[in-house]
Amino acid sequence: MKKIGVILSGCGVYDGAEIHESVLTLLEIQKAGAKAVCMAPNTPQMHVINHLTGKEMDESRNVLVESARIARGDIQDIAGIWASDLDALILPGGFGAAKNLCDFAVKGHQASVHPEVARLVREMSDARKPVGLICIAPAVGALVLGDKGVHLTIGNDADTAANINKLGALHVDCAVGDVVEDPNLKIISTPAYMLGQNIAEVAEGIGKLVRTLISWA
Amino acid sequence: MKKIGVILSGCGVYDGAEIHESVLTLLEIQKAGAKAVCMAPNTPQMHVINHLTGKEMDESRNVLVESARIARGDIQDIAGIWASDLDALILPGGFGAAKNLCDFAVKGHQASVHPEVARLVREMSDARKPVGLICIAPAVGALVLGDKGVHLTIGNDADTAANINKLGALHVDCAVGDVVEDPNLKIISTPAYMLGQNIAEVAEGIGKLVRTLISWA
Repeated sequence: MKKIGVILSGCGVYDGAEIHESVLTLLEIQKAGAKAVCMAPNTPQMHVINHLTGKEMDESRNVLVESARIARGDIQDIAGIWASDLDALILPGGFGAAKNLCDFAVKGHQASVHPEVARLVREMSDARKPVGLICIAPAVGALVLGDKGVHLTIGNDADTAANINKLGALHVDCAVGDVVEDPNLKIISTPAYMLGQNIAEVAEGIGKLVRTLISWA
Repeated sequence: MKKIGVILSGCGVYDGAEIHESVLTLLEIQKAGAKAVCMAPNTPQMHVINHLTGKEMDESRNVLVESARIARGDIQDIAGIWASDLDALILPGGFGAAKNLCDFAVKGHQASVHPEVARLVREMSDARKPVGLICIAPAVGALVLGDKGVHLTIGNDADTAANINKLGALHVDCAVGDVVEDPNLKIISTPAYMLGQNIAEVAEGIGKLVRTLISWA
């Protein structure tokens, strides 16, 4: 059974992993007959957002602990996982990907990536194992693999695309139900809620991404 | 477009709404061409569980605020919603249904239901509008509608079934991919993670529940 790593970044679109994207990823992995291996960095969230009001809360939460909510407790610290443990890797989106896995949300193309996340993505690429990037997670891909000229998409937002291109990556516009493939580097991406107006649209692109990724693995 | 109410109970299986069940419910509603109306009681959670360790945390969280994570902010206080606003209603599971929507997890058949949740479920039933109950949420259904002799399922757990039967409801054993229908009272239930071993199994039963519910609405 193929093992597909899933890097979560908290639990909630505004300060963590986008919940719908994460759950749809887990669903498609299971439907494809593969096994999800959930992981997250053991580090504090950048901040905590009240998802009802959109305002910052005076609280501190841990990315691994909150990600465990999506994984129903079946999750590991990314620091203990290596490319040799996996057949492929997926990063769902949500602001957590741009706030907790890296600080792209604040620093754009000058962002840095959490060291364990950078290590694992680089290892996967060096081992020629496929990596799937959803929503804003291609920012992480561009930060780590921009030097390889990776092709990827975050939909069609011009500012974000410009920041990605500054890293050496090549942004390609893409519709919500579709994917952008870089078969040479085995990187696949889909815009999800960067463009999606509802969960069914997002499910279509994520389904395509997971099935293609697993066929490459 | 039919409006399907979804009562969330927090965000995470051990102290709130089960995330996979909630997201799959939203997905199936959208795929059926209906509109989800997310809501939750504006009340503190019974407690906060660290989903990595299973231990209680020294924190307080609000059910409506945490539920907003699953709803991407598009959620209302249940106190402002009436049966006349909806065509049908669904309660996903997770311990939150038995800890925050009622206290069945602690008091069994002697539990009481959050007053706004009890009001809305009763109103829906009196208006002959369908109600769907997932996982442990049939406990809420039995507490509110036991006097009507409602038929429902939580899978096959004997102790839980006995507590449900003590309320005047009739528990019916059911497989994870299936549903129990009470067409007379327009109540439909599915075991989901009370029995499910993986997300694809749970998705099957929830898909069946949502499609049947919407056909009744």
